[in-house]
Amino acid sequence: MKLPPIHAHEIAHLTQGEILGDANTLITGIAPIESASPGDLSFIAQARFLDYLQQTPAAVILVDRKSTLPSDLRCTLIRVANPYLAFVQAIKQYVPLPQVASGIHPTAQIGAGVRLAANVAIGPLTVISEDCEIGEGVRIGPQCYLGPRVRIGAHTILFQGVHIAHEVQIGSKAIVQYGAVIGSDGFGYVPHEGKYYKIPHLGTVVLEDEVEIGANCCIDRGTFGETRIRRGAKLDNLVHVAHNVVIGENTVMAAQTGISGSTTIGNNVVIAGQVGFVGHIQIGDRTTFGAQAGVTKSIKPGITVSGYPAREHNKAKREEAALRYLPELLKRVRRLEKKLGEGAPSEEPSEE
Amino acid sequence: MKLPPIHAHEIAHLTQGEILGDANTLITGIAPIESASPGDLSFIAQARFLDYLQQTPAAVILVDRKSTLPSDLRCTLIRVANPYLAFVQAIKQYVPLPQVASGIHPTAQIGAGVRLAANVAIGPLTVISEDCEIGEGVRIGPQCYLGPRVRIGAHTILFQGVHIAHEVQIGSKAIVQYGAVIGSDGFGYVPHEGKYYKIPHLGTVVLEDEVEIGANCCIDRGTFGETRIRRGAKLDNLVHVAHNVVIGENTVMAAQTGISGSTTIGNNVVIAGQVGFVGHIQIGDRTTFGAQAGVTKSIKPGITVSGYPAREHNKAKREEAALRYLPELLKRVRRLEKKLGEGAPSEEPSEE
Amino acid sequence: MKLPPIHAHEIAHLTQGEILGDANTLITGIAPIESASPGDLSFIAQARFLDYLQQTPAAVILVDRKSTLPSDLRCTLIRVANPYLAFVQAIKQYVPLPQVASGIHPTAQIGAGVRLAANVAIGPLTVISEDCEIGEGVRIGPQCYLGPRVRIGAHTILFQGVHIAHEVQIGSKAIVQYGAVIGSDGFGYVPHEGKYYKIPHLGTVVLEDEVEIGANCCIDRGTFGETRIRRGAKLDNLVHVAHNVVIGENTVMAAQTGISGSTTIGNNVVIAGQVGFVGHIQIGDRTTFGAQAGVTKSIKPGITVSGYPAREHNKAKREEAALRYLPELLKRVRRLEKKLGEGAPSEEPSEE
Repeated sequence: MKLPPIHAHEIAHLTQGEILGDANTLITGIAPIESASPGDLSFIAQARFLDYLQQTPAAVILVDRKSTLPSDLRCTLIRVANPYLAFVQAIKQYVPLPQVASGIHPTAQIGAGVRLAANVAIGPLTVISEDCEIGEGVRIGPQCYLGPRVRIGAHTILFQGVHIAHEVQIGSKAIVQYGAVIGSDGFGYVPHEGKYYKIPHLGTVVLEDEVEIGANCCIDRGTFGETRIRRGAKLDNLVHVAHNVVIGENTVMAAQTGISGSTTIGNNVVIAGQVGFVGHIQIGDRTTFGAQAGVTKSIKPGITVSGYPAREHNKAKREEAALRYLPELLKRVRRLEKKLGEGAPSEEPSEE
Repeated sequence: MKLPPIHAHEIAHLTQGEILGDANTLITGIAPIESASPGDLSFIAQARFLDYLQQTPAAVILVDRKSTLPSDLRCTLIRVANPYLAFVQAIKQYVPLPQVASGIHPTAQIGAGVRLAANVAIGPLTVISEDCEIGEGVRIGPQCYLGPRVRIGAHTILFQGVHIAHEVQIGSKAIVQYGAVIGSDGFGYVPHEGKYYKIPHLGTVVLEDEVEIGANCCIDRGTFGETRIRRGAKLDNLVHVAHNVVIGENTVMAAQTGISGSTTIGNNVVIAGQVGFVGHIQIGDRTTFGAQAGVTKSIKPGITVSGYPAREHNKAKREEAALRYLPELLKRVRRLEKKLGEGAPSEEPSEE
Repeated sequence: MKLPPIHAHEIAHLTQGEILGDANTLITGIAPIESASPGDLSFIAQARFLDYLQQTPAAVILVDRKSTLPSDLRCTLIRVANPYLAFVQAIKQYVPLPQVASGIHPTAQIGAGVRLAANVAIGPLTVISEDCEIGEGVRIGPQCYLGPRVRIGAHTILFQGVHIAHEVQIGSKAIVQYGAVIGSDGFGYVPHEGKYYKIPHLGTVVLEDEVEIGANCCIDRGTFGETRIRRGAKLDNLVHVAHNVVIGENTVMAAQTGISGSTTIGNNVVIAGQVGFVGHIQIGDRTTFGAQAGVTKSIKPGITVSGYPAREHNKAKREEAALRYLPELLKRVRRLEKKLGEGAPSEEPSEE
């Protein structure tokens, strides 16, 4: 990707890095190391990629300040604490966000009593309902919807086609991607004589600062209280979060995972894709969940679980491995029984 | 949540309840019992919460008419058959729906030949295509889409951003939440010489009265005939319903469940989250499905199933419990074999 | 479904079929064989439905040219190589597409520098951002979004409410259904001191010719390079495709399946519903995946797998069948141990 020219020392300053080589090297583009061209800024995050330093045509490379470097360098290096993070900082600084143009489009529908801070961008055909409050530098894409009394903190970005229901609160520097629904009514009914009567959902959703919600996710509002996603948590696409769930700080959750009502997920939890959690359980901090795990009970902090029903991961793997031997084991036991004059079992395996 | 003042006797009348205490007690808000404030209407649905009667500052409490009550009451009670249901009725009566304002917004696009009954509300930037027929009191949120010839019965509510494809029929008092798609083309192709040719979907979808569809669900239209969701069925978020499926009356289905083509689900079925059903099977009335169950064949009425492949729940639990002992069992059998002079098995467990 | 009158010989010409009977028979409708009425065109794709030939009131039936036919025919037949495919061709020729009206609606927002080829249709309230390039005969439904610099090939159809992010490329004769998101940012973060920093996604998505994407799917753009779905691949509803995934030609994928980042799926692969693939694996051509399979490693061409973790399907079935006998097997082994004077196992099954 091409950029307007930047000097190596500007990147070093931005990333608090130390230059090895010519501080005036001109950068004219940005690329990963495998596909870098002359003039590009790139980075090496893992030692096994250091060999690229001998062959890459890139102009400037961000490297780990602890790396052992070759003696003859072909390009300018910038030594930093975290090369990938430094590269990301450079992209954020120099590559414009394509999702939302600046300004308020004349076709946007802005309701009565809406308060817009400075530098708010609102795309075409977006609906901002009455009494919303939008913080400084917020960028709202085309065809979005904000229901009445929504509040959004500074520098948050809503991509195109986002659905934010009434009274939802979103912090600052948050991102909500295309088609996501924040504040749908939860799945709550009073059963009475074989029918189900809808429980109105009077609660709300709070997304704290720096939360990111993936495309087409659904986050239900609380029945009375709130559904809360804490600071820095990140949700991939098509995730379902039911009413009154709490998701902890810096917890990450891959696509198509679902969390049932009133479950609390701790901080710094890592959840793979297609995981399911039953309702009303407590998930401890720093737990890890394998893909497709079915979590049926509370999990203590620090544990890694997998499988259905979800159990300690090494235990689950041992059991899955042992299952491979079960068809043979049935035959082996029958052989022992015959040797000991035991009769046939009450149910004889017929599949063998 | 604050309300304009209501007298206890008005709630008693609405809920067909019997008052214990002052019928003129003023109600100024509504809250669950754990968080009720002075002036609130609340309810107690389960005997274990009756202790709250001694301590709550609430003004009026709906209680089960069969409950044994303490002798000294701090607040006015209303005795009813189903306290939670009565509470829900009170909310529906007194709390305004925030999702849809009244009236027809000037930016709504109304096609030729559209028939609107009395008191229809249509939000901004909604598209109602030609020849749609919309019943009395229907409320359609902002940025919705109704394709040509859609029919919607009285008092149905479409939340914001709903996609209703051509010719879909929706009954009365139904609800469709944000981003749901009703009437997408089914996944049907004619395979021919290694390629797939799309089968046009000429059928439709019928949602009967009092059906509720969650956010971002997808309900495919029939290939020729119809996909039908019967009266009172409720679907949570992100549910997939394929072409020509039938879902029975008062069946409930939690989030991210998927039903393959031409499968029929009976009445009063309870389905947890992330369950999958293969196509062309029959699911009996009053069956129950555990979360993440993978249903590979027809199920008789009244059965509870779970697991993959789905089987009778108690059987599945016994097998899952037994699996915990399998790694140890492999060792125990090897010990017996050695004792009886048996050679090593043809495949020796290497994980132990 | 009623049609304007067509002669049998017109259908025979369209489908390269051979007429048996009156070439001037008038066709006035179209229906599957079970529900055909007088005047209808229908088809028989499987020999077991040939009995319908004796009783159907249909006017014209498409039959397999290899079928053995009864001697006394009540209706006109057209013998073709693939009757279902021929029927689909007839529908495509004579049944109008209801999803998109022709012309460019005055409320569509067309950005600067957009190039529209001949016969493009664009629905109401659709946003086409700057510098998009739209091929001949493309039909874009109401309330769609095309970000800046999107390119769409000839005769592609976007249903209503589709989200196409900046720079995405779509080939010709492709279909994207309601609410699908093409080009969302992938789920990529740099972890640093317990927090996650978003990686800007500078790549894109390429959908090749004749690809179909179901309702509410999410296809993430590449981090740097591209996510690519090759010619003729078909995705059902609510499928998740992560950044930098490649899906091969004529591969089909049922609803709610998810593919993690950088995984490559081969050609002519068949994937059932709710399947999950971990990232960075290679899936061979002509593989088949059972519903809910959890695919944790690369799979060689031509293999059928199922279960979690996914393994060769016959092996998985044998193990699942053997599991049915495990609770009983635990008792049988205990009986043998007692007979041989062995002590109780270190953990005694308590569930029995």
